[in-house]
Amino acid sequence: MDIKHQLDIIKRGAVEIFSEEELVRKLELAQKENRPLRIKAGFDPTAPDIHLGHTVLLRKLRQFQDLGHEVYFLIGDFTARIGDPSGKSQIRKTLTEEEILENAKTYKKQVSKILDLDKAKVVFNSDWFNKMSVAEILSLTMRVTVSQMLARQDFKDRLEQNQDVSLMEFMYPLLQGYDSVVLKSDIELGGTDQIFNLLVGRDLQKDFHQEPQVVLTMPLLEGTDGVNKMSKSLGNYISINDTAEDMFGKIMSISDELMFKYYTLLTDEDLVLVKNMHPKEAKVILARIIIAQYYSIDVAKKAEEGFRRVFASKEIPEDIPVFKLTKALAVVDLIVDGGLAKSKNEARRLINHGAVDFSGNRISDDKYIIEVTGVLKVGSRRFLKIEKI
Amino acid sequence: MDIKHQLDIIKRGAVEIFSEEELVRKLELAQKENRPLRIKAGFDPTAPDIHLGHTVLLRKLRQFQDLGHEVYFLIGDFTARIGDPSGKSQIRKTLTEEEILENAKTYKKQVSKILDLDKAKVVFNSDWFNKMSVAEILSLTMRVTVSQMLARQDFKDRLEQNQDVSLMEFMYPLLQGYDSVVLKSDIELGGTDQIFNLLVGRDLQKDFHQEPQVVLTMPLLEGTDGVNKMSKSLGNYISINDTAEDMFGKIMSISDELMFKYYTLLTDEDLVLVKNMHPKEAKVILARIIIAQYYSIDVAKKAEEGFRRVFASKEIPEDIPVFKLTKALAVVDLIVDGGLAKSKNEARRLINHGAVDFSGNRISDDKYIIEVTGVLKVGSRRFLKIEKI
Repeated sequence: MDIKHQLDIIKRGAVEIFSEEELVRKLELAQKENRPLRIKAGFDPTAPDIHLGHTVLLRKLRQFQDLGHEVYFLIGDFTARIGDPSGKSQIRKTLTEEEILENAKTYKKQVSKILDLDKAKVVFNSDWFNKMSVAEILSLTMRVTVSQMLARQDFKDRLEQNQDVSLMEFMYPLLQGYDSVVLKSDIELGGTDQIFNLLVGRDLQKDFHQEPQVVLTMPLLEGTDGVNKMSKSLGNYISINDTAEDMFGKIMSISDELMFKYYTLLTDEDLVLVKNMHPKEAKVILARIIIAQYYSIDVAKKAEEGFRRVFASKEIPEDIPVFKLTKALAVVDLIVDGGLAKSKNEARRLINHGAVDFSGNRISDDKYIIEVTGVLKVGSRRFLKIEKI
Repeated sequence: MDIKHQLDIIKRGAVEIFSEEELVRKLELAQKENRPLRIKAGFDPTAPDIHLGHTVLLRKLRQFQDLGHEVYFLIGDFTARIGDPSGKSQIRKTLTEEEILENAKTYKKQVSKILDLDKAKVVFNSDWFNKMSVAEILSLTMRVTVSQMLARQDFKDRLEQNQDVSLMEFMYPLLQGYDSVVLKSDIELGGTDQIFNLLVGRDLQKDFHQEPQVVLTMPLLEGTDGVNKMSKSLGNYISINDTAEDMFGKIMSISDELMFKYYTLLTDEDLVLVKNMHPKEAKVILARIIIAQYYSIDVAKKAEEGFRRVFASKEIPEDIPVFKLTKALAVVDLIVDGGLAKSKNEARRLINHGAVDFSGNRISDDKYIIEVTGVLKVGSRRFLKIEKI
């Protein structure tokens, strides 16, 4: 594949590249010498539930794999025990070795839905850090100055606000940078919040007489609210473990503007074509594509049908009350709590009479558990939109 | 010995004690339990030529020994490979392991003139740091904040002047502090420029659930110029390897004010008595005492006699020209360079005629080398004061 075309794929959705000239040179040289580039990305095995926000980077890695390059999937099991608070105001709690290994396992299982882990090299940085001597680690600290570290925005902000910055946090970028030296990475990918640490890697590689890695940053994907970074703790996330129905409902709930961003970062679709589609239809297709990535095209179609049956049909009024589901609930409880019946006995009677359906499916069992997004209908006029938090 | 008397000896010349209450408590407890306190002082084996400036701390350690306490003479062979620039604007050059060991040997030999090294425990901090893992050293960095480090005056100054502070320099106080944890020191001694690092040791000991060490700082002795800290590179130093004659001459050249400081820090003399002496006589006695410490009372007396013969006799005018000796010189060259004769031939003739003497000793060999402080006399009227730099 010609460089121009490779570059188009690599640049899609990327925020910054340090530098594009170096990237082109590396791509050309790799092609000429018929060898793959070494692509590095580091992952903290601290959040085992992968959501679409995480997949932005993973998909980019997959693109590099598809272009024939070699991906180093670095599990920062050593650094996770330290914790890097880039963009966060709190020091992360440190994990035990056991927790980290358990998380790493779950992580890899989920990642395999996106990356070809058979082709990727999965590496753990405890492999080299556990073997290093104190003298070696100290010699790393000689290679950066305090002023350099103080230039990092979140350090600067926190110090100005008289918040603690542990000296350990100054060590983190160094360790991450040293990973690049060990892996001899040609390119490192990271979120925009990682830019400082990624550039330290370039500096360290130069110190160790290596060609510095190209740094490529990807945006932090906004969650379904369209405002905040997608995050489990904010409840605005779409997990890749969500049911197809949940995924569909959540994706249909996002704004048109955010939809376009999701298309850019979460699909390979031609963006010119997307722009010419009707937003509502484009959103349905987006949902279909994403679900197909994690389930199958058939499951995606089924979820779409269910959604269309409930929402797209004219049966359901526009403004129906919303019930925020914080945990799985039995349908009888949900009917009572949602105000669709006065008592559990009345709810049971309605179910027995075949007057209750959930997202288009009649419910006949009063012990039926509702735990996903959908629409609960009682009789012909009472509706409740169930939103899972 | 009662606590009050111990305290008088310990406090003599000290600048600060953190805290005196803790010191008293430790002394009392040690006495009650009939065990020695653990006194720590760290030495960089980087300056093998010990001068009187260094002896201030060593003498204080000796006093602790004489009070029955246990001195831990810590050779910072590990940390010396890092270099701490406390109070210096430049990062010290790092030493090789070989250089350090060689220096340590020379160091101990000289130190034994002051300390009882048979009783002291000589320890090397490479012993524990070489065995530490990277994870352990990083866990130390979690115990201090960047703000704490930035509070150190010389870091603050250098950063404000846009001078580099290596991240490694932030590690140094931590390592020094950890030495105290390993040694479980009760008291650490250091120069006033060490105060920050010494206090980090207290913090770390608390973190490791140890009683924090008492910190005792000693002043940095001014050199013979009375202005700058005594230092080999400034040429204002009195080495304990200097000849007795040099020592005598140098001590006699200091100001009356500085003499009193030297009495306080370099002798055990009763300072009330010293204050009542004539300054010139006090200075002679000071020189005699110090020389006796490093040679013997006989050598001291001989040096004094020589000095008195030259300076105290009325033979020599008050204002004679001074020649700064930068290197050893043959007497003929010195006579010519100093303007006491017009040519080397004339100088040789004068020597052959017995007209030349140096510090009261007639010179008969025209190849005689002059390398120490003294007075060169040619004929009966031409004098040259030789000062070694």
